[in-house]
Amino acid sequence: MVQAYMLIQTEVGMAAAVAEAVAEIDGVIRVDTVTGPYDVVVLTEAATVDHLGQAVVSRVQRVAGITRTLTCSILKI
Amino acid sequence: MVQAYMLIQTEVGMAAAVAEAVAEIDGVIRVDTVTGPYDVVVLTEAATVDHLGQAVVSRVQRVAGITRTLTCSILKI
Amino acid sequence: MVQAYMLIQTEVGMAAAVAEAVAEIDGVIRVDTVTGPYDVVVLTEAATVDHLGQAVVSRVQRVAGITRTLTCSILKI
Amino acid sequence: MVQAYMLIQTEVGMAAAVAEAVAEIDGVIRVDTVTGPYDVVVLTEAATVDHLGQAVVSRVQRVAGITRTLTCSILKI
Amino acid sequence: MVQAYMLIQTEVGMAAAVAEAVAEIDGVIRVDTVTGPYDVVVLTEAATVDHLGQAVVSRVQRVAGITRTLTCSILKI
Amino acid sequence: MVQAYMLIQTEVGMAAAVAEAVAEIDGVIRVDTVTGPYDVVVLTEAATVDHLGQAVVSRVQRVAGITRTLTCSILKI
Amino acid sequence: MVQAYMLIQTEVGMAAAVAEAVAEIDGVIRVDTVTGPYDVVVLTEAATVDHLGQAVVSRVQRVAGITRTLTCSILKI
Amino acid sequence: MVQAYMLIQTEVGMAAAVAEAVAEIDGVIRVDTVTGPYDVVVLTEAATVDHLGQAVVSRVQRVAGITRTLTCSILKI
Amino acid sequence: MVQAYMLIQTEVGMAAAVAEAVAEIDGVIRVDTVTGPYDVVVLTEAATVDHLGQAVVSRVQRVAGITRTLTCSILKI
Amino acid sequence: MVQAYMLIQTEVGMAAAVAEAVAEIDGVIRVDTVTGPYDVVVLTEAATVDHLGQAVVSRVQRVAGITRTLTCSILKI
Repeated sequence: MVQAYMLIQTEVGMAAAVAEAVAEIDGVIRVDTVTGPYDVVVLTEAATVDHLGQAVVSRVQRVAGITRTLTCSILKI
Repeated sequence: MVQAYMLIQTEVGMAAAVAEAVAEIDGVIRVDTVTGPYDVVVLTEAATVDHLGQAVVSRVQRVAGITRTLTCSILKI
Repeated sequence: MVQAYMLIQTEVGMAAAVAEAVAEIDGVIRVDTVTGPYDVVVLTEAATVDHLGQAVVSRVQRVAGITRTLTCSILKI
Repeated sequence: MVQAYMLIQTEVGMAAAVAEAVAEIDGVIRVDTVTGPYDVVVLTEAATVDHLGQAVVSRVQRVAGITRTLTCSILKI
Repeated sequence: MVQAYMLIQTEVGMAAAVAEAVAEIDGVIRVDTVTGPYDVVVLTEAATVDHLGQAVVSRVQRVAGITRTLTCSILKI
Repeated sequence: MVQAYMLIQTEVGMAAAVAEAVAEIDGVIRVDTVTGPYDVVVLTEAATVDHLGQAVVSRVQRVAGITRTLTCSILKI
Repeated sequence: MVQAYMLIQTEVGMAAAVAEAVAEIDGVIRVDTVTGPYDVVVLTEAATVDHLGQAVVSRVQRVAGITRTLTCSILKI
Repeated sequence: MVQAYMLIQTEVGMAAAVAEAVAEIDGVIRVDTVTGPYDVVVLTEAATVDHLGQAVVSRVQRVAGITRTLTCSILKI
Repeated sequence: MVQAYMLIQTEVGMAAAVAEAVAEIDGVIRVDTVTGPYDVVVLTEAATVDHLGQAVVSRVQRVAGITRTLTCSILKI
Repeated sequence: MVQAYMLIQTEVGMAAAVAEAVAEIDGVIRVDTVTGPYDVVVLTEAATVDHLGQAVVSRVQRVAGITRTLTCSILKI
């Protein structure tokens, strides 16, 4: 399994709506609205890196109300 | 009780209007227009973290004229 | 009365110690350790702008463990 | 007397027009177009902090062509 | 229960050591080394906001090798 | 006559000392300690651009306690 | 003679057009499209600081496609 | 042969489309969608610096959906 | 195979030495010194995400002279 | 001929010394101390990209007092 966090900035006041929509996407295993410079933190998971990209991350990025996403792959150092 | 500061940037010239609207919201216990990189500083309070989020912070974020909010939870370290 | 917020960044792990020391200073009416890009938020007050600068803000700035302060005067717009 | 500097960013090519309009406002005692990351630097003055905010700073902020203002109160440290 | 994410930057090459030390702290329920501008992402939890601050966040901040932490409280909006 | 503003950041707590030392330099016609992201704002003047650089700006830059200076030439647009 | 560099950011894909238009302006003695965070670097020159501002820098700033200009006066230190 | 990397930011959700279009351009020898603050990383190559600029980099910059490009020439140090 | 780019900042003048040392590490398939805000761009590869992290990325991060690394996983979107 | 600009930040007060040292280096055809966020702007030139990197840019980077260099290759777009 490969995983990645997505740190998401939304349009002002859209955090809840974005979080709700993101939670519906397969491969999203946790969604939280947060304080600080980001609005939503998402934990995503897929069988392969390609699947993570094409089936999860790209679908999250298409949710309305998102202004910027920062994807941080989980990498055992 | 849980509390949080909200550092707010507004559209140019909208600080006073935003401060006025924010002051009307339940759970907002102090509002100040300020100099520096932020335009308005708000002190918010609620019984629980959930209530703070859903009933106060999200309502403040929906005030017209706000371009960016940075919520800083008060956390006794 | 004139007032100002001070948004303070501290060395990692020094937020509590800084907050404690700042709370001792005359003219400091509220101190909170917070989450987000700042570590401590201070509300200061003095009779005049000069007094605020010389007797409060400059004394806060000399507290050990502070790396950066951002003073935001409260200004009724 | 209380004073404050305002560091102003304008839309590209609007510095001269903004400076001209700002110079007309009571409480503005000096206006300069400058090089560097800011376009206009304004020195403002008023009898009280409230007056500075309500009668000077907020009026400057409403001048057309301004994209961002950074107000720095003059504070004798 | 209250929760918060901590986005951590470490000295170059120290991510693994920091993650290992953080994982030992009570109240830390998940630790991941990640790619991107942050090096370690931590999910923390405690019974109360105070406990989260004093017993978890402040202990994480004292782990050697950390240069900056950004705490984002989880807030249902 | 040519003029320039210098926006100065100092080590924490050094604003007053820097302002005092800068005020002694020929060609410095105004010095203010300020709130916000800068600590000291200086207005400098000289007969020629070369003189401004060599006799004023460079001498200000050598004052102890300064961490960064941003010189903004005054340019009639 | 007084001189200044202008570091220019343009809308994506507009660097060539901006450079071409800028090259036509009196007082512009060198124009280069470049890699890195800026798109165009311009070297400007005029008899006096005022002339540099009013006849050169302000005319460059009015060229279509420019999103941000950063003027750096050449100052013999 | 001269080469350069282009670090590209796209509108949210447009990374795949941009990568596909860029891959069609002569002189582009590698295109990858990536995580982190950039969305697409492109490796470009041409016989001369001029050709790299006029025939490759400028054509990449005109692909729809790109918001910012940062070109980093490969330079044997 | 999984791949990632590493954008590396080095101490001033250390780019060549860092590039040379990084090139020796297994899993590094391309190293370039570049212009712009980064000094070295590295393309890394490994059989699994874990191996990429533990055997390649973490070893690159331990090369002397590196001040900051930004790892961007290659993710087919 | 290939050319590049180098935008250089120096330690406070070191601009003149750095400019003087840089001017001695073969391949440096212009050096200016400037106002704004950079301290020195250098125009470099060499027969080939490799020579520019190895014989000019890397030698400039080794001049004492430089804290950061940003090299912008001149690229006809």
